[in-house]
Amino acid sequence: MEYVKSKIRDIIDFPKPGIIFRDLTTMLKDAKAMHMVADGLASLYRDKGITKVVGIESRGFIGGSILAYEIGAGFVPARKPGKLPADTISASFEKEYGFDTIELHADAITPDDIVVIHDDLLATGGTMNAAYELVKTMNPKKIYINFIVELSALNGRDVLPKEAEVTSLIVY
Amino acid sequence: MEYVKSKIRDIIDFPKPGIIFRDLTTMLKDAKAMHMVADGLASLYRDKGITKVVGIESRGFIGGSILAYEIGAGFVPARKPGKLPADTISASFEKEYGFDTIELHADAITPDDIVVIHDDLLATGGTMNAAYELVKTMNPKKIYINFIVELSALNGRDVLPKEAEVTSLIVY
Repeated sequence: MEYVKSKIRDIIDFPKPGIIFRDLTTMLKDAKAMHMVADGLASLYRDKGITKVVGIESRGFIGGSILAYEIGAGFVPARKPGKLPADTISASFEKEYGFDTIELHADAITPDDIVVIHDDLLATGGTMNAAYELVKTMNPKKIYINFIVELSALNGRDVLPKEAEVTSLIVY
Repeated sequence: MEYVKSKIRDIIDFPKPGIIFRDLTTMLKDAKAMHMVADGLASLYRDKGITKVVGIESRGFIGGSILAYEIGAGFVPARKPGKLPADTISASFEKEYGFDTIELHADAITPDDIVVIHDDLLATGGTMNAAYELVKTMNPKKIYINFIVELSALNGRDVLPKEAEVTSLIVY
């Protein structure tokens, strides 16, 4: 993954002073790096019987849909409020300032499913934790959690459910 | 594509009375339908030397990233304002009420690129037209336009640039 890592761009002071933003767009536009990420994600989950990959809006749609495609699973978008047109379930979570909400279609996942929830980057873990709780209400057989990049200094893993198996391809 | 079409769900009166919303999430969660879409998109562009696929936020990230992956191109997200961390270029376009803006990283595309811009659905064409104008300022060799679904009654093709080759997999 050193090649992939070399394609991630550091943006100093974005979105605010003191933050180093790990910009994955420079990796995504490099077809070779993108294939290495896809192969890496697929090799983690190919033998796990995954039937649905949940991708978190917006950037989690990218790796999530490629992962779903690669391992022959369906893709389920977890979206911002008001975007999904049919019956939804929702979960709110605390952000730095105030609260945010994510939604899933109420019929997106069934008890027969084995699910991996994907987002591009693990920071504080709040969004993923809310997504996990939401997916759990649908009683799938198992729920995995996956990221392309993990920012270990922010201890996001501590927020995630203890029973979930969490993987990431690249750790800072 | 009849199987794929059978997996698209019609939502009556969303987002407002009188609109039939074509909900692609029921297609995406069906692994077989998703593979047929991916194969369909890839077969349209595999022999065209595409180097970059631009996907329009948010739903265009799904098919766009799978298409990029399948044909060995890089993926470039066209995003809502303020989301891309490095230098950007932007274009505004008229929506039903007021204006909207999309952005690309200024270094996302070069004059050596052959580009396909992807979104999930062609309605009035305003967003895609703005994306096309934005990509064009970067002077790639050629720009293609692609959708999974086209709502022909809205005449979105009439808004799109005459010189662009436009394809869609499913027409309503």
